Amino acid sequence: MRTQYCGHLNKALAGQTVELCGWVNRRRDLGGLIFIDMRDREGIVQVVIDPDMKDVFDVANQLRNEFCIKITGEVRVRPDSQVNKDMATGEVEVLARGLEIINRAEPLPLDFNQNNSEEQRLKHRYLDLRRPEMSDRIKLRAKASSFVRRFLDDNGFLDIETPVLTKATPEGARDYLVPSRVHKGKFYALPQSPQLFKQLLMMSGFDRYYQIVKCFRDEDLRADRQPEFTQIDIETSFMTAVDVRAKMEEMIRNMWQELLDVDLGEFPMMTYEEAMRRFGSDKPDLRNPLELVDVADIVKDVEFKVFSGPANDAKGRVAVIRVPGGAALSRKQIDEYTKYVGIYGAKGLAWMKVNDRAAGLEGVQSPVAKFLNEDVVNAILDRTGAESGDIILFGADSAKVVTEAMGALRLKLGNDLELTDTSKWAPLWVVDWPMFEDDDEGNLHAVHHPFTAPLNMTPEELKANPAGTLSDAYDMVLNGYEVGGGSVRIHNSAMQSAVFDILGIEEAEQQQKFGFLLEALKYGTPPHAGLAFGLDRLVMLLCGTENIRDVIAFPKTTAAACLLTDAPSEANPASLEELALTITAAQKEQNDA
Amino acid sequence: MRTQYCGHLNKALAGQTVELCGWVNRRRDLGGLIFIDMRDREGIVQVVIDPDMKDVFDVANQLRNEFCIKITGEVRVRPDSQVNKDMATGEVEVLARGLEIINRAEPLPLDFNQNNSEEQRLKHRYLDLRRPEMSDRIKLRAKASSFVRRFLDDNGFLDIETPVLTKATPEGARDYLVPSRVHKGKFYALPQSPQLFKQLLMMSGFDRYYQIVKCFRDEDLRADRQPEFTQIDIETSFMTAVDVRAKMEEMIRNMWQELLDVDLGEFPMMTYEEAMRRFGSDKPDLRNPLELVDVADIVKDVEFKVFSGPANDAKGRVAVIRVPGGAALSRKQIDEYTKYVGIYGAKGLAWMKVNDRAAGLEGVQSPVAKFLNEDVVNAILDRTGAESGDIILFGADSAKVVTEAMGALRLKLGNDLELTDTSKWAPLWVVDWPMFEDDDEGNLHAVHHPFTAPLNMTPEELKANPAGTLSDAYDMVLNGYEVGGGSVRIHNSAMQSAVFDILGIEEAEQQQKFGFLLEALKYGTPPHAGLAFGLDRLVMLLCGTENIRDVIAFPKTTAAACLLTDAPSEANPASLEELALTITAAQKEQNDA
Repeated sequence: MRTQYCGHLNKALAGQTVELCGWVNRRRDLGGLIFIDMRDREGIVQVVIDPDMKDVFDVANQLRNEFCIKITGEVRVRPDSQVNKDMATGEVEVLARGLEIINRAEPLPLDFNQNNSEEQRLKHRYLDLRRPEMSDRIKLRAKASSFVRRFLDDNGFLDIETPVLTKATPEGARDYLVPSRVHKGKFYALPQSPQLFKQLLMMSGFDRYYQIVKCFRDEDLRADRQPEFTQIDIETSFMTAVDVRAKMEEMIRNMWQELLDVDLGEFPMMTYEEAMRRFGSDKPDLRNPLELVDVADIVKDVEFKVFSGPANDAKGRVAVIRVPGGAALSRKQIDEYTKYVGIYGAKGLAWMKVNDRAAGLEGVQSPVAKFLNEDVVNAILDRTGAESGDIILFGADSAKVVTEAMGALRLKLGNDLELTDTSKWAPLWVVDWPMFEDDDEGNLHAVHHPFTAPLNMTPEELKANPAGTLSDAYDMVLNGYEVGGGSVRIHNSAMQSAVFDILGIEEAEQQQKFGFLLEALKYGTPPHAGLAFGLDRLVMLLCGTENIRDVIAFPKTTAAACLLTDAPSEANPASLEELALTITAAQKEQNDA
Repeated sequence: MRTQYCGHLNKALAGQTVELCGWVNRRRDLGGLIFIDMRDREGIVQVVIDPDMKDVFDVANQLRNEFCIKITGEVRVRPDSQVNKDMATGEVEVLARGLEIINRAEPLPLDFNQNNSEEQRLKHRYLDLRRPEMSDRIKLRAKASSFVRRFLDDNGFLDIETPVLTKATPEGARDYLVPSRVHKGKFYALPQSPQLFKQLLMMSGFDRYYQIVKCFRDEDLRADRQPEFTQIDIETSFMTAVDVRAKMEEMIRNMWQELLDVDLGEFPMMTYEEAMRRFGSDKPDLRNPLELVDVADIVKDVEFKVFSGPANDAKGRVAVIRVPGGAALSRKQIDEYTKYVGIYGAKGLAWMKVNDRAAGLEGVQSPVAKFLNEDVVNAILDRTGAESGDIILFGADSAKVVTEAMGALRLKLGNDLELTDTSKWAPLWVVDWPMFEDDDEGNLHAVHHPFTAPLNMTPEELKANPAGTLSDAYDMVLNGYEVGGGSVRIHNSAMQSAVFDILGIEEAEQQQKFGFLLEALKYGTPPHAGLAFGLDRLVMLLCGTENIRDVIAFPKTTAAACLLTDAPSEANPASLEELALTITAAQKEQNDA
């Protein structure tokens, strides 16, 4: 029905007759003429309607915003004085010779010229997606998927689909369950990831697998999580962690180059230990110049117990952040930061303003200075590289609290004081993760998932000292977001059993849940390793938005609801009956109330 | 870890040292040497182990089928006498200089050299997929997806994801329900297709959309259905049905050309009415030369009521199939075909063998000949183009029974008598579908779905005579399989309401189920049309298999179970409690029993 997209018109088409289909973005009546900004997927062009074309003009007079129309007209070059440089098609306009109203529009429930509440936008998502800002994001997402697929296809990866109706796995967060009608009283689970299936595909010899696949997590929702999310899921055989990382780094680097014309450079590599120590985070944002500096050795002999206590405790930590120019912080600001670290369990936030670096103890202003001596203060100032005008902020508590609180404080200071260089891109790999973490009751849990291989270790060595073991896992971090994570997998049944044993999964449970995996490991399983990227996160970063709902065509709210279609909703009682399920009486009462 | 794939070795690499990773496909000990057929994703190559290399030979002596190994060795050209022409790498072999057992294999539960039960194959799917026959299918599927994506990307279609957790729709077959934990007592539904979302995307102005997407149907399973299946889902704006068909035909034609080197030619177009009349099917297999020939007008005055009854009934039909050479059918074979048409409700199968075409009534042999006269017989023989040696088979009953029974008989005869030319490809478009079908109680149901547009009609015209209306729908048929189907959609709220009214969906129900669609139609909806292909079916055809499970990596059984992972399974009682659900007592008792 069209010869061109509105957004593709340019001077080369001057004099030609074109047919356009699209929407009235704006109508203006000016000097007896009608000007229509006409919009389609590719952009906006100005259409001029001359009153001399009476038939066309009469139709144009009926037009309102968002009418769907078809225009036939002649492309003409605008005079220099009327060129609109803010518009991709601003050098031309179309003189209408024919105009057809394809479909009328009632006044919109959204006003495109002002901010609408997110609730309104989600309820009328189909209209919100007409805004070029939104449609550009969805288009960039399509480009990103397409880029990834081409890269992986060209690198010998096979796109293989894995099931959505699967068996429940205990991978941390909760499964969505799907009752079976054929097997009443039994349930499928929606996958949190295709982890086991992709490992089975390696056992089948497919060598390199990928899939861009929906995954599901029924958990309390945070701002950047959705109940369904999309993963770029990858697995390889006979490749080491180094090989996998190199290939994936190449993919992301090429993607940024192609889609944003940005060179991410070579990704630095950092151990988990270093990331936690220097940045208080397993996904450090390296655009932020602040660092945590350990000073336990310096303060371990001071009389101030708040410092020397944790400094002498094997599970304690004393670390400081030097904030350049931070001496200008007001008492009120410092109080707010103190409250902020409180969220993470810190009982206070000692501080030290450096008024005159050369003057040592005399040159600092601090409520705790009186507990410290000249040597201690100078040692801290030296180690942090402090200069006059800076502030030093102290964290002293259990290592866990200090790392979390100071890590969060570092990010907040970086943003508040605009120290984080948001014009930069900061990718890195975080490697050498701990294999297990302790809960408060002395049980070990897998930090990644129970199929992750330990780093260079036999099953016997692993069993001898599980707590301190490192895994051959790696996360890709970009600007402080974990964009991807993966590991070398266990490809040996003795090792897999050892890990299940350490995790306290009993033999019977192992068989019931993972019997097929343990069985599969018996038949010549190749060494394999993989990784999964969060596509939603990658696209968020590509688009420069911090709202994950901006990069999903039909997202759910943080309460896991679709405001457009009103899902979830009540089920047909007949369906429930067929599934042999009933809603508990207590719940029914509550819903009726 | 490798320098090459086994399957890629050839004479050009002669003399080079290669490293290979893969599996022992077969080991033979011959003349003091050990020969290993080593397999990886890309194929098989012969590895020779010389007893002079004692270390390597000792390791090789331990090898058994399906051990995962690494070989370092030298590629050498085989002497002419030892070239294996059945093997892609048959001109070369690798002389091993190093051999590492990466992982051992216990004796396999499947024997690759003989047929295993499908149950065994599904239970050990990861092993079954090692068979080149199976892995080739999965690889061809990946190529097919990749081809489709590239074609659609290059034609301006945007890959946009739609939700998996959606609101239930009444699209015929049953929805899988997913209980919500956040909104207890409420449910999501897994989509039977992204129909409404893709229409909303057109309302958003995305113009051309596609997605290769999982869809779900909780229905009684047939041989070629799976509870989850994959759709190539497509929607366009401002394109007519003709445009859409042309683009999709181009895609499928190019796909066959690229993947099979087959030219499908131009697809013929046939109305639904013609397909049902000539072939007794809405998805005729045109490789089968048999046709249904209507003869009601010829037999309407005969005394034989079995023929003249339906011939004079407006809802009746009398149709014959001429089977070339069918006079050779035995009485027993005819009895079996009679039984076969009985499945479709036919009360009998009259037949007429043409022994001597020139002799008219005298020349035929038939239990019903005595009820017919010379003119009638000659007219039937003329119309069917019968020749000596043929048989004519009669269907006379309600139009529904005759069409179904003779349509099924036509297919069976084509296969049994090898009349269907299975070396050919026969694509076609079936168009001009009826908009509605009658149930036995006089209610109208949508033949496609309730968003399908009628062919050239106003809402008023539609309401005046709904029963006979044709829709602007089209199916793509290939070799008797419906591989894709679609339609022009309703883009006008008056028309959409008219259709809902005709379908007996009351105002309140319309609002509750489709309120968002009716609302969306108010704001300048563009004309739009689309189509969805069944990817599983397309790949079945590409692979030349009739078992849909052969083209899915991890399929479910016809009872919707995964034999590998044992899904569905019992849910954790705590999870059910959290969902505020209980299994009915009756069902629990039954499951415990």
